[in-house]
Amino acid sequence: MGKTKTGAYIPLPAVPLVLVGANVRGRPNYLPVGFVAGVNAEPAVVCVGLNKAHHTTAGILESGTFSLNVPPAGLVAEADFCGLVSGREADKSRLFTTFYGGLGTAPLIEECPVVCECRLVGPKVEFAMDTVFFGEITQVYVDEGLLGPGGRVDAAKARPFVFCGLENRYRALGEELGSAWSAGKGLLKAL
Amino acid sequence: MGKTKTGAYIPLPAVPLVLVGANVRGRPNYLPVGFVAGVNAEPAVVCVGLNKAHHTTAGILESGTFSLNVPPAGLVAEADFCGLVSGREADKSRLFTTFYGGLGTAPLIEECPVVCECRLVGPKVEFAMDTVFFGEITQVYVDEGLLGPGGRVDAAKARPFVFCGLENRYRALGEELGSAWSAGKGLLKAL
Repeated sequence: MGKTKTGAYIPLPAVPLVLVGANVRGRPNYLPVGFVAGVNAEPAVVCVGLNKAHHTTAGILESGTFSLNVPPAGLVAEADFCGLVSGREADKSRLFTTFYGGLGTAPLIEECPVVCECRLVGPKVEFAMDTVFFGEITQVYVDEGLLGPGGRVDAAKARPFVFCGLENRYRALGEELGSAWSAGKGLLKAL
Repeated sequence: MGKTKTGAYIPLPAVPLVLVGANVRGRPNYLPVGFVAGVNAEPAVVCVGLNKAHHTTAGILESGTFSLNVPPAGLVAEADFCGLVSGREADKSRLFTTFYGGLGTAPLIEECPVVCECRLVGPKVEFAMDTVFFGEITQVYVDEGLLGPGGRVDAAKARPFVFCGLENRYRALGEELGSAWSAGKGLLKAL
């Protein structure tokens, strides 16, 4: 089967969707972001790409902190809504119960089963539309119901979903396909 | 339900898993990477976080180009295997059929239904373990079978999967949960 050139765009079929939280002039604001990834494991550092015009961007610069809130499948509508309306026009924090952690200025969403607070580190990298911010994760908070034996976080219980940008759709996670660092062991002999 | 502090780690339950490709001293090498995200839509720019010791990292620096290859569910074992063995020890390119696009030096995997080539742009940002590279996507190539009406890419046909780091598991995508930029419209009246 041959391949066809289809232009220049972000071709990732499924990415995480987090609500990035920041206080803007003292009020919590939340923005759904699919431009998010870990970039360093120890210390734990993430990056987010945010349009320069976003209200949330101003809040991150104001406080030097932000949060990532992982919405469960039951909050698809709320997460999507946060991308339809700017914090300049509506108080999106009214959709959620906000709490604060050790950093004190990164608003966290009680209704999201997995949340974390971050402090800005590294450079701010500017591209044509977006600024990339790096955040060192200082603490992750999870619902007690997610904790399994030995304090292990059972992420599947958080009912996470992904954003499928090419389909313009949100999807739940599906069947298990194998264990990481293990599924490929059978090929060790092949090479 | 209360929340518990669980430390500092990357808390994203599901992330994309791509095979990052680079030529290292003329030979294609592929590394599975979950530290990957879009960061700017126009032009399309992605970032990848790669351990400084990786063979692939040397190849990116050598050529100034790299590729992202989105493996389908049928290649879970091959993708996982590429993370178990270094290109210093094995010729991982023998698992796949490599082709080249316009950049000429970013190896692309024929067996992956969605692939793209990238040229390095912006700064290289160093953290304790990883270097973050930014790549402008110059061309995406997809299997012809993914093209739907109007040349639209039907990403679901690519059978993508995600890496669930907290579960240490790969998962297929599941049920549709709503349309992006639409699922939240019903809440417009609420605020």
